[in-house]
Amino acid sequence: MTHRRPSLAVVGATGAIGGVMLQILSQHADVWGEVRLIASPRAAGRKLVVRGEETEVLALGEDVFDDVDVALFLVPDEVSAQWVPVAASKGVVVIDDSAAFRLDDDVPLVVPEINPHAVRLRPRGIVASPNCTTLSLIVAVGALHAEFGLRELIVSSYQAVSGVGRDGVAALREQLSLVAGTELGTRPGDVRRALGDAESGPFAAPVALNVVPWAGDDAGGGWSTEELAIRAECRKVLGLPELKVTATCVYVPVVATHSMSVHARFENEVTVERAHEILATAPGVVLFDDPAAGDFPTPSDVVGTDPTWVGRVRRSMDDPYAVEMFICGDNLRKGAALNVAEIAESVAGEFSRV
Amino acid sequence: MTHRRPSLAVVGATGAIGGVMLQILSQHADVWGEVRLIASPRAAGRKLVVRGEETEVLALGEDVFDDVDVALFLVPDEVSAQWVPVAASKGVVVIDDSAAFRLDDDVPLVVPEINPHAVRLRPRGIVASPNCTTLSLIVAVGALHAEFGLRELIVSSYQAVSGVGRDGVAALREQLSLVAGTELGTRPGDVRRALGDAESGPFAAPVALNVVPWAGDDAGGGWSTEELAIRAECRKVLGLPELKVTATCVYVPVVATHSMSVHARFENEVTVERAHEILATAPGVVLFDDPAAGDFPTPSDVVGTDPTWVGRVRRSMDDPYAVEMFICGDNLRKGAALNVAEIAESVAGEFSRV
Repeated sequence: MTHRRPSLAVVGATGAIGGVMLQILSQHADVWGEVRLIASPRAAGRKLVVRGEETEVLALGEDVFDDVDVALFLVPDEVSAQWVPVAASKGVVVIDDSAAFRLDDDVPLVVPEINPHAVRLRPRGIVASPNCTTLSLIVAVGALHAEFGLRELIVSSYQAVSGVGRDGVAALREQLSLVAGTELGTRPGDVRRALGDAESGPFAAPVALNVVPWAGDDAGGGWSTEELAIRAECRKVLGLPELKVTATCVYVPVVATHSMSVHARFENEVTVERAHEILATAPGVVLFDDPAAGDFPTPSDVVGTDPTWVGRVRRSMDDPYAVEMFICGDNLRKGAALNVAEIAESVAGEFSRV
Repeated sequence: MTHRRPSLAVVGATGAIGGVMLQILSQHADVWGEVRLIASPRAAGRKLVVRGEETEVLALGEDVFDDVDVALFLVPDEVSAQWVPVAASKGVVVIDDSAAFRLDDDVPLVVPEINPHAVRLRPRGIVASPNCTTLSLIVAVGALHAEFGLRELIVSSYQAVSGVGRDGVAALREQLSLVAGTELGTRPGDVRRALGDAESGPFAAPVALNVVPWAGDDAGGGWSTEELAIRAECRKVLGLPELKVTATCVYVPVVATHSMSVHARFENEVTVERAHEILATAPGVVLFDDPAAGDFPTPSDVVGTDPTWVGRVRRSMDDPYAVEMFICGDNLRKGAALNVAEIAESVAGEFSRV
């Protein structure tokens, strides 16, 4: 048995999720040989620190995948759509964080706490990681599903602006700098006047002092692509193609950590006591649920942490088969970089066993 | 037939809702004789403008209700609990905005668009106005109920900080001034460090750059009082004592206007087309629903306006009897002062017909 350490490429190393990935690579047990940092030609040549070493960023191109075993793609959908097949065709195992391949029947969609074995079945050499909204929710819901049998989810999100990348954070920061010094009033137009010509950035409306009930693109029937993504991805990861899922996705002026108000209905009767027991011991979940003592998760508690935090667990007063929960997960960690890293680490094990 | 104009007392004239009430009294058709402004002894002596006239604020006390026909109470629960019966015992018709009498069987809970006739049945001489969260939702839901027969509501709120009064706005303003100048990061503790020792104010956690899934007090079973209020008040106003209602109440860093993500299930099948027709013509409702064109309600669009705005109307993909909606209503106008003013104006008509 050899213990060759596989080589790793991080594509999108200079982005918001890339930055978190470099932290994770520096913090986790190091299973990698060479780590190659890759970004667009515009960002190439910059130097970033990973595993304590300054490393020059290389420009994305075909040759950059030579001698790479595993590549993490942390880039927009269209970049993945173009370059993931290029890397895969060279024998690289690709872990893709974009939406480009998530619903491809020949690409497993993997959350290691839920469906770890799916990572082995990858006929295209590609493994996909779910949307950050799905990920901020599914570890907790999956733990309850294993016990009670999930039948329906009705989810309303409180999504952080970093879900759309660094542009979202920049837009919120600019908008906040315009409103913070003003007398915040309660008269019509106060907020709009304070924001003046501030760009909404990547959002469909200003997000400072506001909430924006639209995420992604028009998917028909009044639904946004983000809402239908949660539906399709929860069904695929949980292996429940008939699962009822209704999502309403809303951006809020929070930098990082997605929150979700969740109504979950099960095949079997649920008690808060048993749900608490399951959530308290589920991998990747923190139960934080004693509101009378001030214990419930908020984004400012959760940001920068790895687990999915769950609180406000209540049994529906109208239905003994349903519970309500409030769930928070850092969209840049478990919601993106961490899940990709965990998938990659499970793939790395295959190489060390060669 | 005489046309005596009834005299009006505004109790809590110096508060957040009182300020909006003075605007409304100056803008609406003037049906009142004397208008007396009343506040705590601490605020008495201040001069406020109403109907174009500087008016001195009087201290709350028993004598202040002499010769008053109608009194609007825009004060905290405990102040209403003490003083509403005093005013009512002197023959004053009281319209109370607090929670103190909302669920009293002998006090009607009135939303003029939904149950206008209930205002006449007031054995204690008291009429109550619902919680701002109920009000921001019920006009739209009630219009659909009249056509389809409501069976269940699952609601997640995005509540504005002014829902708890001026203290909430002050807390958000202070917190924002601390975070706006900082590098908003995505690392653990960034937000908490920036806020430093900033008071959470009336909230259970900091609300700037955060969301806080707790409103009101502990009501047992994991529920907050605000969540159970929505349930009880929707049942009472709609006259549906068996209505299934599940609410999750969450504060967001918005100054004014409550938003709600609503899953509504009906007795009869619903189409988006028919729901649109009803909402487009319902009194007190604005339909704003073309997300592909950027048309959906956000608090910054709605603040300062009277109606309930509805968008994101979608039929559930799993249930032809259910629709999803996103609803916004200014919690200080229809959600408080406006509904109280509309109730009072309908009562004023009784005096002019004496």
